[in-house]
Amino acid sequence: MAKPIYVLNGPNLNMLGLREPAIYGSDSLDDVRKKAEARAKALGLTIDFRQSNIEGELVTWVQEARDKAAAIILNAGAYSHSSIALLDAMQAAELPVIEVHLSNIFRREPYRQHSYISHGAKGVICGLGAKGYELALEALADLLAA
Amino acid sequence: MAKPIYVLNGPNLNMLGLREPAIYGSDSLDDVRKKAEARAKALGLTIDFRQSNIEGELVTWVQEARDKAAAIILNAGAYSHSSIALLDAMQAAELPVIEVHLSNIFRREPYRQHSYISHGAKGVICGLGAKGYELALEALADLLAA
Amino acid sequence: MAKPIYVLNGPNLNMLGLREPAIYGSDSLDDVRKKAEARAKALGLTIDFRQSNIEGELVTWVQEARDKAAAIILNAGAYSHSSIALLDAMQAAELPVIEVHLSNIFRREPYRQHSYISHGAKGVICGLGAKGYELALEALADLLAA
Amino acid sequence: MAKPIYVLNGPNLNMLGLREPAIYGSDSLDDVRKKAEARAKALGLTIDFRQSNIEGELVTWVQEARDKAAAIILNAGAYSHSSIALLDAMQAAELPVIEVHLSNIFRREPYRQHSYISHGAKGVICGLGAKGYELALEALADLLAA
Amino acid sequence: MAKPIYVLNGPNLNMLGLREPAIYGSDSLDDVRKKAEARAKALGLTIDFRQSNIEGELVTWVQEARDKAAAIILNAGAYSHSSIALLDAMQAAELPVIEVHLSNIFRREPYRQHSYISHGAKGVICGLGAKGYELALEALADLLAA
Amino acid sequence: MAKPIYVLNGPNLNMLGLREPAIYGSDSLDDVRKKAEARAKALGLTIDFRQSNIEGELVTWVQEARDKAAAIILNAGAYSHSSIALLDAMQAAELPVIEVHLSNIFRREPYRQHSYISHGAKGVICGLGAKGYELALEALADLLAA
Amino acid sequence: MAKPIYVLNGPNLNMLGLREPAIYGSDSLDDVRKKAEARAKALGLTIDFRQSNIEGELVTWVQEARDKAAAIILNAGAYSHSSIALLDAMQAAELPVIEVHLSNIFRREPYRQHSYISHGAKGVICGLGAKGYELALEALADLLAA
Amino acid sequence: MAKPIYVLNGPNLNMLGLREPAIYGSDSLDDVRKKAEARAKALGLTIDFRQSNIEGELVTWVQEARDKAAAIILNAGAYSHSSIALLDAMQAAELPVIEVHLSNIFRREPYRQHSYISHGAKGVICGLGAKGYELALEALADLLAA
Amino acid sequence: MAKPIYVLNGPNLNMLGLREPAIYGSDSLDDVRKKAEARAKALGLTIDFRQSNIEGELVTWVQEARDKAAAIILNAGAYSHSSIALLDAMQAAELPVIEVHLSNIFRREPYRQHSYISHGAKGVICGLGAKGYELALEALADLLAA
Amino acid sequence: MAKPIYVLNGPNLNMLGLREPAIYGSDSLDDVRKKAEARAKALGLTIDFRQSNIEGELVTWVQEARDKAAAIILNAGAYSHSSIALLDAMQAAELPVIEVHLSNIFRREPYRQHSYISHGAKGVICGLGAKGYELALEALADLLAA
Amino acid sequence: MAKPIYVLNGPNLNMLGLREPAIYGSDSLDDVRKKAEARAKALGLTIDFRQSNIEGELVTWVQEARDKAAAIILNAGAYSHSSIALLDAMQAAELPVIEVHLSNIFRREPYRQHSYISHGAKGVICGLGAKGYELALEALADLLAA
Amino acid sequence: MAKPIYVLNGPNLNMLGLREPAIYGSDSLDDVRKKAEARAKALGLTIDFRQSNIEGELVTWVQEARDKAAAIILNAGAYSHSSIALLDAMQAAELPVIEVHLSNIFRREPYRQHSYISHGAKGVICGLGAKGYELALEALADLLAA
Repeated sequence: MAKPIYVLNGPNLNMLGLREPAIYGSDSLDDVRKKAEARAKALGLTIDFRQSNIEGELVTWVQEARDKAAAIILNAGAYSHSSIALLDAMQAAELPVIEVHLSNIFRREPYRQHSYISHGAKGVICGLGAKGYELALEALADLLAA
Repeated sequence: MAKPIYVLNGPNLNMLGLREPAIYGSDSLDDVRKKAEARAKALGLTIDFRQSNIEGELVTWVQEARDKAAAIILNAGAYSHSSIALLDAMQAAELPVIEVHLSNIFRREPYRQHSYISHGAKGVICGLGAKGYELALEALADLLAA
Repeated sequence: MAKPIYVLNGPNLNMLGLREPAIYGSDSLDDVRKKAEARAKALGLTIDFRQSNIEGELVTWVQEARDKAAAIILNAGAYSHSSIALLDAMQAAELPVIEVHLSNIFRREPYRQHSYISHGAKGVICGLGAKGYELALEALADLLAA
Repeated sequence: MAKPIYVLNGPNLNMLGLREPAIYGSDSLDDVRKKAEARAKALGLTIDFRQSNIEGELVTWVQEARDKAAAIILNAGAYSHSSIALLDAMQAAELPVIEVHLSNIFRREPYRQHSYISHGAKGVICGLGAKGYELALEALADLLAA
Repeated sequence: MAKPIYVLNGPNLNMLGLREPAIYGSDSLDDVRKKAEARAKALGLTIDFRQSNIEGELVTWVQEARDKAAAIILNAGAYSHSSIALLDAMQAAELPVIEVHLSNIFRREPYRQHSYISHGAKGVICGLGAKGYELALEALADLLAA
Repeated sequence: MAKPIYVLNGPNLNMLGLREPAIYGSDSLDDVRKKAEARAKALGLTIDFRQSNIEGELVTWVQEARDKAAAIILNAGAYSHSSIALLDAMQAAELPVIEVHLSNIFRREPYRQHSYISHGAKGVICGLGAKGYELALEALADLLAA
Repeated sequence: MAKPIYVLNGPNLNMLGLREPAIYGSDSLDDVRKKAEARAKALGLTIDFRQSNIEGELVTWVQEARDKAAAIILNAGAYSHSSIALLDAMQAAELPVIEVHLSNIFRREPYRQHSYISHGAKGVICGLGAKGYELALEALADLLAA
Repeated sequence: MAKPIYVLNGPNLNMLGLREPAIYGSDSLDDVRKKAEARAKALGLTIDFRQSNIEGELVTWVQEARDKAAAIILNAGAYSHSSIALLDAMQAAELPVIEVHLSNIFRREPYRQHSYISHGAKGVICGLGAKGYELALEALADLLAA
Repeated sequence: MAKPIYVLNGPNLNMLGLREPAIYGSDSLDDVRKKAEARAKALGLTIDFRQSNIEGELVTWVQEARDKAAAIILNAGAYSHSSIALLDAMQAAELPVIEVHLSNIFRREPYRQHSYISHGAKGVICGLGAKGYELALEALADLLAA
Repeated sequence: MAKPIYVLNGPNLNMLGLREPAIYGSDSLDDVRKKAEARAKALGLTIDFRQSNIEGELVTWVQEARDKAAAIILNAGAYSHSSIALLDAMQAAELPVIEVHLSNIFRREPYRQHSYISHGAKGVICGLGAKGYELALEALADLLAA
Repeated sequence: MAKPIYVLNGPNLNMLGLREPAIYGSDSLDDVRKKAEARAKALGLTIDFRQSNIEGELVTWVQEARDKAAAIILNAGAYSHSSIALLDAMQAAELPVIEVHLSNIFRREPYRQHSYISHGAKGVICGLGAKGYELALEALADLLAA
Repeated sequence: MAKPIYVLNGPNLNMLGLREPAIYGSDSLDDVRKKAEARAKALGLTIDFRQSNIEGELVTWVQEARDKAAAIILNAGAYSHSSIALLDAMQAAELPVIEVHLSNIFRREPYRQHSYISHGAKGVICGLGAKGYELALEALADLLAA
């Protein structure tokens, strides 16, 4: 059976729907998961959807993906802006990674406009809400089929 | 009849396929147009696909979109990094804009890692090649249907 | 029964009394807790006093406070200077937060003179040792009574 | 017959009245032209009022002014912040130039707070809307009479 | 009777005519006052024209204008570049303020190219000598009549 | 008889209640004085409460405190961000100083986020309005009793 | 027949001889062309000598050179300091480019001391006036013969 | 019995041998441990060798070393570049610490060229692979014998 | 009779002898005055020795020197680092000025290592205590005799 | 007899041919000397060709040129980027200097992209290998004949 | 016979033992040499131990090592922080270099925390006093045996 | 017999009188020496006056002063702005050093406005020409007599 796509979510994404809905929308993280699962199914993919507030746990999941996943969708939330450890894990994983952000981080505070994750990602999709996860899945389906 | 999506391409995109294929891929801009047209058709949209090397012409097209287009996909190429005039035109157009880059600009030279366009865009998709245009079309289809 | 004030302490505050007493004083964290409890009691408040070395655990506690606490006193220690995740959690919690530091961080190394926490706090008290926790409690008593 | 004052307007000024009226007001560029013509007439001056979205065209007009105009009023819009070519043209024109902005650029984004044009201008008037063009004309009338 | 326009002049403007005439011209401050009074009269306005070398005195005058003046013309001289206190006073005064400089500060030393005053001003006029005061009066006449 | 606590207020604090009440609240400076006096009395302290718009006068008062006061509460307003002279005076006074700000300066413009005063203060309290003065008095009562 | 060397000149070079002769000399651009043609002839080369004030037109000419020219001499004038689009075109052209400036840009304003063009050029010659074009031709003759 | 040397390894060091072998070599972390144990034995020392991806766990281990270890060898990996919490823990531990990196961090990306850990370390050894651990042990043997 | 040398002292110099004697020495400002008077007398000069805590008063004294003094010795204390107004006054005074500091400001905090005064001074003497005033007098005696 | 052109080479140029041939080419410094001598002879010039690894020796040679040389070609190697002393010597020599670099320093590390030498040079030629020396000789021949 | 290891010491290392012993220890440079010789002998190596205050002489020694040495230990002292010439020489030498510093340069002034040498070194050892030379020898023994 | 004062002069000071006399005056270095000797004699001191263009030689002389001189007057010329080696030598010498510059370095290019020498000097005298050496001698006479 084909390996799943890891869909990894960082700190405070478990607060989705409650947290600043003007910025992040009213979908809960569970709603996002369901949309991603539906799209994955349509594309013939499976996903493994997780969330953690702990940087080191996200690092471990990215490492684990090296053997267990076909690719990664990574929304590292606030850790995107500071985590060299996640970037190192991505490079150790040797898998295609698409970085996703719900909001357009380039219209926000200056400290949200730089992402270490981007330096190791195949591509970046931001500002398109939960839809961004779906688009990332389609892009990965293409990449994996290539 | 519904207004088209303007798909506007900036300087040197007319060299696609010839120019640094290790970075930009071997598709020509015409190949990109065809893929975008196919996806647009599948989504029930039409597109108006153009390219210019002149910043002011791109500005004029974005202005023109205010009346004639439903939304904009903008790959402003090198002008992304310096053109406040394009950002102003986007704000004057009052339309959803999705910024697209073929390469992942965040893995390139520092001067390519900032985009003025991003400050006025709904969302950003980069690093996914011609596929990025297709994903942008799907995102706009959703936005326009909302 | 009224919700408690969460009093959350970050990395190395468990070393209080042992760690650089010229800067941080000779009180242990348990001494600080007792002083805070006594003041809380005098003000008709209860507190829930915790410490963690793990950024993600502090994030989770701040999230949890959204439902379970009336307000937060946050001494995030060294994470104050780097944690956008904690700032995001504070904004998700939608509660008054007072940031406390035992030492006057503005007389110390440059990298200790900026706090992300401050951007989301109602107020800041620093340099007044354990007394700072007591004053924060009084300020919160006023705010909650308003 | 006396040479006219060139009144040159840069990118997006053709969108005036439509574009962000909270910042730029509801006058169209044609309204601005009419006010400027009326004041010029009252001052015994004539004006040649133009707009272009193309930096190079503005450069050419400033060069042309060397022989054909008595002075220049220049609202270079977004090109003010990046165009060394316009500054060079001003220096080649060897005419008095007054830089005008409709909005107070110093209350806006940091990248709008520096103007290359200013380095070559006799004076700067900003934040006073269409009135700024009239005041610039009066100032030039004085300068040319001196 | 209508409230006057406060015309406030900062440090070293009392040296006008003596001080670096190549930059500031040969008019004395009294000459400037007379020209401003004449223009004010023509516009149906009165002015209250003052000068001080003391930042705090300028702050007090701006505060006083809140009740006693219709608007302010402020040439804060060297304090423009450093005085947050004057900016605060302008915001407390809640009156239209036009910032005037005799010289074009953007052609001078880098430390003269930023003005805190500008962040609170309606508009800025610089480089036009004593004429700048007259133009500011006309602009205020319009604003007050609106 | 014990020496008083000097409570020194800088520029524009005399406008309190009138000035930007969304930021600074609706209490007048006299209201603040009364609250501080009441708290001082309760703590067995006396205060000498003053305000000046002139940096040099504040410097003189801090110098004077060396002989005449037991401690200082200093809200230097806008001079906090620029006055090395006040910092020098604090070091010459050799007294405990607590810096107070009504608003949380760390949520405001970048130029308000650095205070020279902090480098010489025992502690800092900000964002807690008039309450901050009361808390500073309690902290000083403790310090003086130690 | 051998392909020519494109000799491309950017904004304001059409003003040569008129424009700031203390910096740029009294030769007109036509004089420069004649000297370049003479040297080219002596070296067995032909040149195609052009000037434009429009960045996008220069971009198009550099692109065109890919097929039609043997090499490029590029004096991009003020666009040297800001045009990433020209740099991209140079990289797409895959030809040897020598950057020429009439003046020594390193003795001028800081914003003239960085050139994006240099990042894609084989070599740079500046400060030697029209002679610089002749030397560039000789260098290219050598390179093309190698 | 003598206390051991704590040999603490940060994020992604568990991927050693797999991760970017051109930079980090082909030894696994277990290989490194064995080499360190052999050298420790030869020097009459014991080691306690650990790895964690979680910053807070590394902080706790450094704190724990205060009582249980004689010294620390710390390869904090990517946390070296951002962790003030680890630096604070080192200062609380009051033990000699030698910082080790497998690669020469000064030949890598700019964000890897600064280490907070270095500010609290006795010495730094980098670029010498697993050998660096051995050399650190010898240096500590000397220090502890002094 | 010959005009005196103005010896002007800025904020906190009235605290000399009391203030941080390890940095500034144990002489009072009156002691400095006496030494300066003695040296002046020996050189055939007279001095007018003053001190103020108010920037604007120092500005006024420097302006006044234009007519009443032969030269200026200026120790502007903390205002040296921020006062463009004093620099402007010096340029308006058109007299030789020697800047004196008791301490070597280049061995102190970064914000004390830049002086605006220096940009307008003939020379600078620092780090030599009260002796610096004497040496400045001798240098001025030479200059005035030239 | 006419004075020679001094051709001065800085540190590590004696390693030419051995040192990083991909960057610097395979010619030895002696090869460069021979090419320069041949061109000089053809131009009716003589050269004095030297190399030193010692900054101070290069300074002395540039000083010596004031009397003994007609002009200077200076390839100061790594000292170009740091030596204000060489710049001062050039200004003391009062001779035309052409700066030459074998490689295009603007395509290399950031610290190689600034040259102090350039601030004092008539012109700069870089990226053209040994040919650059020949072109510099021709340019000097022209200058000396003018 | 095997080539020696060059052990090269830069400026002021000849003052060792006399110079700031709190930072650099009480060993003289001769003591360091003896320790290094003993360790080299134990490792089957020979060393050539030198010191110079002249940057250019150090450059020459590094160049000379290309032919005459097996590897280099380089303590360039203060030149580490500024010498691109030494870095270039290291790259020309094509030998393994280990950079050694007696003190931990990362705990010292900011200008001592960057080393150009590091960019060309195999590894760096600092803060371990004379022991650092011994450890560098062992590391080189390993490298040369590999 | 008392030890002399070392008066050490750096690069290009041997060109004094010839070099940019508008900045440095028309005295030769020998004239400066004579004036210094005369003043030294009057103060009962002897001097040892030297000049070198080589940084390392200046370092050696400062080291030598530790044993052979009573104090140092150091005009390090252009090396002032870059030489950490000279600063280290000054600290190793453990003697009072007065830094002298002929011109006022604070009115010159930005790169001349910082001196490493200043961080180790007792005092600084600049802008007073050869007179500065005399004043430094008097200051040292006082210091040595204290």
